[in-house]
Amino acid sequence: MGQPETLCNTGAHHDGSPLYVADQAPALGERVEVFLRTANALGVRRAFVRTAPDGEPRFAEALVDRADDSETWWRASVEIVNPECGYRFLLHTAGGQLWLTAAGLSRVEVTDAADFTLTAYPPPPAWAADAVIYQIFPDRFARSSRPPAALPSWARRAEWHDPIPYGTPGALQQLYGGDLWGVAERLDHIERLGANLIYLTPFFPARSNHRYDATSFDRVDPLLGGDEALRALTAAAHARGMRVIGDITLNHSGDGHEWFLRGRAEESSPERGFYYLHGDDYATFAGVKTLPKFDHRSEELRRRLSRVVTRYLEEFGLDGWRVDVAQSAGRHGGIELNAQVAGDARAAVGDRLLLAEHQFDASAALRGDGWHGTMSYAGFARPVWSWLARERSTEFWGTPGPIPLYGGHDVAEVMRRHSSRVPWRSLTHSMTLLDSHDTARFRSIAGRDHQHLGAALLFTLPGLPMVFAGDEVGVEGVHLEDGRRPFPWDGPQDEGTHRIYRDLIGLRRTRPALRSGGLRWLRAEEDVLLFERALPGETLLVQVSRRDHAPVLAPAAMACLTGGPDLRPGEPMPADGPAFHIWEFSA
Amino acid sequence: MGQPETLCNTGAHHDGSPLYVADQAPALGERVEVFLRTANALGVRRAFVRTAPDGEPRFAEALVDRADDSETWWRASVEIVNPECGYRFLLHTAGGQLWLTAAGLSRVEVTDAADFTLTAYPPPPAWAADAVIYQIFPDRFARSSRPPAALPSWARRAEWHDPIPYGTPGALQQLYGGDLWGVAERLDHIERLGANLIYLTPFFPARSNHRYDATSFDRVDPLLGGDEALRALTAAAHARGMRVIGDITLNHSGDGHEWFLRGRAEESSPERGFYYLHGDDYATFAGVKTLPKFDHRSEELRRRLSRVVTRYLEEFGLDGWRVDVAQSAGRHGGIELNAQVAGDARAAVGDRLLLAEHQFDASAALRGDGWHGTMSYAGFARPVWSWLARERSTEFWGTPGPIPLYGGHDVAEVMRRHSSRVPWRSLTHSMTLLDSHDTARFRSIAGRDHQHLGAALLFTLPGLPMVFAGDEVGVEGVHLEDGRRPFPWDGPQDEGTHRIYRDLIGLRRTRPALRSGGLRWLRAEEDVLLFERALPGETLLVQVSRRDHAPVLAPAAMACLTGGPDLRPGEPMPADGPAFHIWEFSA
Repeated sequence: MGQPETLCNTGAHHDGSPLYVADQAPALGERVEVFLRTANALGVRRAFVRTAPDGEPRFAEALVDRADDSETWWRASVEIVNPECGYRFLLHTAGGQLWLTAAGLSRVEVTDAADFTLTAYPPPPAWAADAVIYQIFPDRFARSSRPPAALPSWARRAEWHDPIPYGTPGALQQLYGGDLWGVAERLDHIERLGANLIYLTPFFPARSNHRYDATSFDRVDPLLGGDEALRALTAAAHARGMRVIGDITLNHSGDGHEWFLRGRAEESSPERGFYYLHGDDYATFAGVKTLPKFDHRSEELRRRLSRVVTRYLEEFGLDGWRVDVAQSAGRHGGIELNAQVAGDARAAVGDRLLLAEHQFDASAALRGDGWHGTMSYAGFARPVWSWLARERSTEFWGTPGPIPLYGGHDVAEVMRRHSSRVPWRSLTHSMTLLDSHDTARFRSIAGRDHQHLGAALLFTLPGLPMVFAGDEVGVEGVHLEDGRRPFPWDGPQDEGTHRIYRDLIGLRRTRPALRSGGLRWLRAEEDVLLFERALPGETLLVQVSRRDHAPVLAPAAMACLTGGPDLRPGEPMPADGPAFHIWEFSA
Repeated sequence: MGQPETLCNTGAHHDGSPLYVADQAPALGERVEVFLRTANALGVRRAFVRTAPDGEPRFAEALVDRADDSETWWRASVEIVNPECGYRFLLHTAGGQLWLTAAGLSRVEVTDAADFTLTAYPPPPAWAADAVIYQIFPDRFARSSRPPAALPSWARRAEWHDPIPYGTPGALQQLYGGDLWGVAERLDHIERLGANLIYLTPFFPARSNHRYDATSFDRVDPLLGGDEALRALTAAAHARGMRVIGDITLNHSGDGHEWFLRGRAEESSPERGFYYLHGDDYATFAGVKTLPKFDHRSEELRRRLSRVVTRYLEEFGLDGWRVDVAQSAGRHGGIELNAQVAGDARAAVGDRLLLAEHQFDASAALRGDGWHGTMSYAGFARPVWSWLARERSTEFWGTPGPIPLYGGHDVAEVMRRHSSRVPWRSLTHSMTLLDSHDTARFRSIAGRDHQHLGAALLFTLPGLPMVFAGDEVGVEGVHLEDGRRPFPWDGPQDEGTHRIYRDLIGLRRTRPALRSGGLRWLRAEEDVLLFERALPGETLLVQVSRRDHAPVLAPAAMACLTGGPDLRPGEPMPADGPAFHIWEFSA
């Protein structure tokens, strides 16, 4: 159980950001300079970096690079002998030895689990680190001005303002009629918000409004405008300097999928081997009969899926993919092909972006040459909900019981536990989010003020922040399906919330340290989180206060970027809550 | 940094032992009953077990199995959907939620890293769990009564009582003349000690006294008595109910190996591909030119090595293998075949035992269907040295600086960190040890009294305890090579130490709870470690005291098995040190 003192031990720090690692995309065989920062009060006499080339531990002594009255910076180098190189630091201090890993300082020997990691696998596209993601559930974002396509037999038409009939039979067959033309017509809204990467949940034909039960991967659902609409959308987005990623299920298809129908009907068809068919029965995702699970032992299946992945990048201009239920894909009983699925997908996306759904601990899946990042429910959304929820008796990712009540130190502890097991590059390329099409709306959980605090964390902590369309204008939703309410183009929209989102996104997009800077937790108490984001030449301080708390003293001269007071070193920082502030250290 | 209170939180406990897991070798598709024990003081209202079949988390509620005034036992079941099934517990208490993993209780969400693990891979041989291992460095254990073989040109003859010329050139070529016939002649000594598994360091021909630089895998070194001696030794051991394992390098051979010579000489030979040959240069283990590294991309190499592994089991009666530098085997730059090497070896040993050297964090290597266990330097030897060393300025597995000074709570913390990442079955099949042919003698590090405390931990904690031949009679050695002193058959031998070893091994062999019981840490303070080992019907309490300390009160009526006082509940336990005591709970 984490102690605040341990958590915020700023006696020594290192992370994978440019302030501490000279090369963010090293190649095999290179040497990378790494820097370690220690408080002089810690009394470090010697420092060593410990690597394990080919599995054999080695120690190399670090040299003092520079020092001032309060801190010493040490320099060492790590040779990239293997594609993933773990390293950690050993400090000799007056009080004994200390190990420094991504989990913090330890007096006693640590396992390799939290070693810092440099990776020589090809990096994600350079633009990805600057992404602010806008998630669109196509049926619910915007109806275009075009006449709607004819309704298929499985569907029921809803009016845009109809409430979501959640939990009732047929709720997933209710279509509100949003389409991709509608998205293209609303790019102004997205651009004005400051988002630059549109993430579309599935656009393939299906038999539900969420479309995770694809009936084909060969075309864009005509209900959404078809192939032409997707091409037009990506072209329009690119013209504004925005990018678009799609959403694909590599774990399963719908039971109406042409492959599934053919595989069931024709014993000798190649599609027969695409699924786990046993007579009339078949394996499914999570017991849902409409979602037959793919059998990735079929090389033909893997080839076809790879072709789908590549084709929409090349022919439709998509800039990458988000992969649905990635934690299950390729994994079935004694068959374990999850890493294979990730590796195939990575090969198929080439130099585009590859993100994956992982609602739980994705650390194992973020090793190797697979997903660039995952959705950070575990490392971001759940700890933030646990700190800020007002409504605690709601669903919580299937975990029984009310949402637990965290203090700020718990939030930082959970985030550190998760991040300590993930290479820095994967951490900073994982989607952070307050909610999604798979959750209640955070606003309905946390209330308006706390939504703003959550947004402050979302746009200032490491990761690729994702906004579920509508969050920025205060859309509510008390349940997963209810959260998929149509965007309220005709109101009501919360202009105050919209302004806060715009301002935070604007800050993020103009301040590189918020996108790529190192993260140091300086204070994590019951009602306040305080952390530093820093790049060479730019140091920002973020304070998020849940309630009034004892004031913290400014560690340096700082100019406020969010309308609060500029401060001199040692002056008390504002201590009211709920509130957030961002400062920049003065030169 | 671990707090003693956290460590010894006995509010809730589970581990993989028979008290808590109904089936120690489940098959895929089975359901296994698991039991959870909670102190009533913790106020647990409901308990759930969380699994993740095919990667998808699921919760199932546990039922109360039985309860008394102080404890409640909960029952749930885990379906073995995948070959390795992680699970953990969620407790709803009056004070909020708690997670229980192998790392202990946590108020906040945990990663999957420390989940308990059940594995459906085939189990190690049933006899392994009862093993007490006796490590023999063949050149130094016993000269037989037979005439010695002619000395090869690389070797120098030493007399049995000559000091080890450690650190001098030629030290590794000094032969003392022990042989396998000599081992067979001394089985009485090993049997009297109570050891039942002989682990021989390499017996292949080589150019050094350690023989990790094999020149052939086709025969037993004639200097050791050749093939005939090994066959005779295994037969004689089996006749006494003892077993024998060998030691093989799958990472490298010697530069005099017939494969290496042929590969270098003949460009078109299959052996050419067995090594990383680049002109006259080649890849080595740790930069040592006499140890060319195997290239496991060669299928022919892998076939040949598998044949060697199998052949000595089938034709020579070996009962298994210990694999040298397993952490590096198959791992070279961008080539990562370590799991393949382990899997090949596992397939080749069949139903025999497969242990691997791992001087550091072996947790990743103990997943999957590879090594049954590893050598537990990290999880046992180093924390014990750190608690008990008197000589702290010696070598410490390459880590710069003196041996760190641990309190007992640090020992327990390091052991828990390591064990929390390893399936219970692998933990209990890993070699625990105080020293080996690769270290100074523990007695020279810790002194006589502390050696006895180390032995008490060695024979009462989970794992397969290993005695480096000579430890049991007080052989010293201040350095890795010096530790390889010949066995002092003609004295001096410390009879007191010998008796303590015999008694502890005898207790272990007659008390199943010491071999297979669950482990609960009850107290871990600066100078005292107190833990429970328990099976259904047998509960033992072990107390190891470094120095005098405040007394602990007996938790139950207990009969002392080591000559100390029997105790009633609440009576103070002995608190003098250095000392150790083992009690059995009265029925």
